[in-house]
Amino acid sequence: MADLPSLWTHEPHRVLAFKPGDRVSDIDTHATPGFDGSKADAPALQAERNERFAQLQEMLYANGRAGDTRSVLLVLQGMDTAGKGGIVEHVVGAGSPMGIRYTSFGVPTAEERAHHYLWRIRNALPGPGLVGVFDRSHYEDVLVVRVRNLVPPDVWGARYDEINAFERELTEAGTTIVKVAMFVSLEEQKQRLAERLERPDKYWKYNPGDVDERALWPAYQEAYQAVLDKTSTEWAPWHVVPCDRKWYSRLAVTELLIETLKSLDLSWPPADFDVEAEKKRLAAS
Amino acid sequence: MADLPSLWTHEPHRVLAFKPGDRVSDIDTHATPGFDGSKADAPALQAERNERFAQLQEMLYANGRAGDTRSVLLVLQGMDTAGKGGIVEHVVGAGSPMGIRYTSFGVPTAEERAHHYLWRIRNALPGPGLVGVFDRSHYEDVLVVRVRNLVPPDVWGARYDEINAFERELTEAGTTIVKVAMFVSLEEQKQRLAERLERPDKYWKYNPGDVDERALWPAYQEAYQAVLDKTSTEWAPWHVVPCDRKWYSRLAVTELLIETLKSLDLSWPPADFDVEAEKKRLAAS
Repeated sequence: MADLPSLWTHEPHRVLAFKPGDRVSDIDTHATPGFDGSKADAPALQAERNERFAQLQEMLYANGRAGDTRSVLLVLQGMDTAGKGGIVEHVVGAGSPMGIRYTSFGVPTAEERAHHYLWRIRNALPGPGLVGVFDRSHYEDVLVVRVRNLVPPDVWGARYDEINAFERELTEAGTTIVKVAMFVSLEEQKQRLAERLERPDKYWKYNPGDVDERALWPAYQEAYQAVLDKTSTEWAPWHVVPCDRKWYSRLAVTELLIETLKSLDLSWPPADFDVEAEKKRLAAS
Repeated sequence: MADLPSLWTHEPHRVLAFKPGDRVSDIDTHATPGFDGSKADAPALQAERNERFAQLQEMLYANGRAGDTRSVLLVLQGMDTAGKGGIVEHVVGAGSPMGIRYTSFGVPTAEERAHHYLWRIRNALPGPGLVGVFDRSHYEDVLVVRVRNLVPPDVWGARYDEINAFERELTEAGTTIVKVAMFVSLEEQKQRLAERLERPDKYWKYNPGDVDERALWPAYQEAYQAVLDKTSTEWAPWHVVPCDRKWYSRLAVTELLIETLKSLDLSWPPADFDVEAEKKRLAAS
């Protein structure tokens, strides 16, 4: 924990880890697990930790350029307004565009529907040295697809094992997967949607379909419970992040990324050339 | 110029525009054209203008989501150490990963070589609402390819017209192209390469081939001159940015992007739903 700011009393990747038996209905979306600070502490701390993330992300990128095939994949799932976009902008955005590969997964296109549901996912995986970000992901295929009955139960029912096998394959190929389930309360969601309706600069984020989804909240809670129960594996565990306080969720995901990058035990790649000889050649050029 | 900070005495997109007859050999790479401030002014101004760029970039993205098909493409060309990576990180990086599409073009892969040289370029074009960034580009096919005689002269010689036609097509399809030629002096390049050899955290950026390229400097100057002479078109003009002072080149490219986004005359997309009706539905949900 040497690198963890003192306002964290518990390591985020531990305190936020989904544990067998945890219930989605018990999540306190307003809580700030493991964090002993307040909103007033957040801006300075976030800026400092963004810097730390950026350093580690650059080091991962440098290693990728030097032949290391490892990568990191951040998977963001959550109901509308949970704050996925804010994580992308204020957390991942601290890295360099050079080393970040962002993909948003919306309603599948005709081309995507003509393929296996993992096809578009495979096409968006981060290459060596990159931090991939999935804004929604293959989990939509056991969330909205399940809740909306878009395929028969035996079809979506078979996907949990398939997803686990897929993620194991990714992990074995050198991708560390960071899965973040973002939970906001039904009431907080209402306030955030209302804000989008009050501000013309937010209209573009509003979709009338979001209100329809609210009526299906219990079914979504159940579908999220199944995701956490069935796909929180040793190689790709889920983290449950309370998101009613945006400042907390951003700090928390930042620490999850930092912890993940640190676990790769990176250092600057050594020179693959003779440094002293190059100095002479350069001086003579 | 209402939006331009007062330290700029001339609009960057005008003062940096390549003009017929301009000579690459006359570029003062240490100059700060149009800017009346100093290095000390840069950090605060850069932070403020990054913010402005981020606002406009978000607005472009919002319009893209609402059906506007327009996009922006920043093309960065320059010799090694000119600072392309710094522009990506410190200028473009101020935008959201959601709305930025970054592509680096290195030595073509076997698959890329099997296709027309514009194939990989077409595959990397920004979609609606995005700001694309090319770190090197199709211009490599008339720069290194010309200098290194990788194809016969009649082949690269035909590419200038082809590139102009290609860029015209892009422009007509709604992509505003911002072409930036970054110029560093031979001496400044030596210092920057030397720094990479002094710092183990910079070894990964060093490539012994960069020293070999230095011997070809006059040929590259000539190739850049041809690019500027032949491909600075009305629809996709070149900007010539002196880059010996990194703080200046970053400020300048930031203004070029801001000016470009402003020229699109963007506003927040109107609601495509009945706002009052939605407020009622939301309240009842």
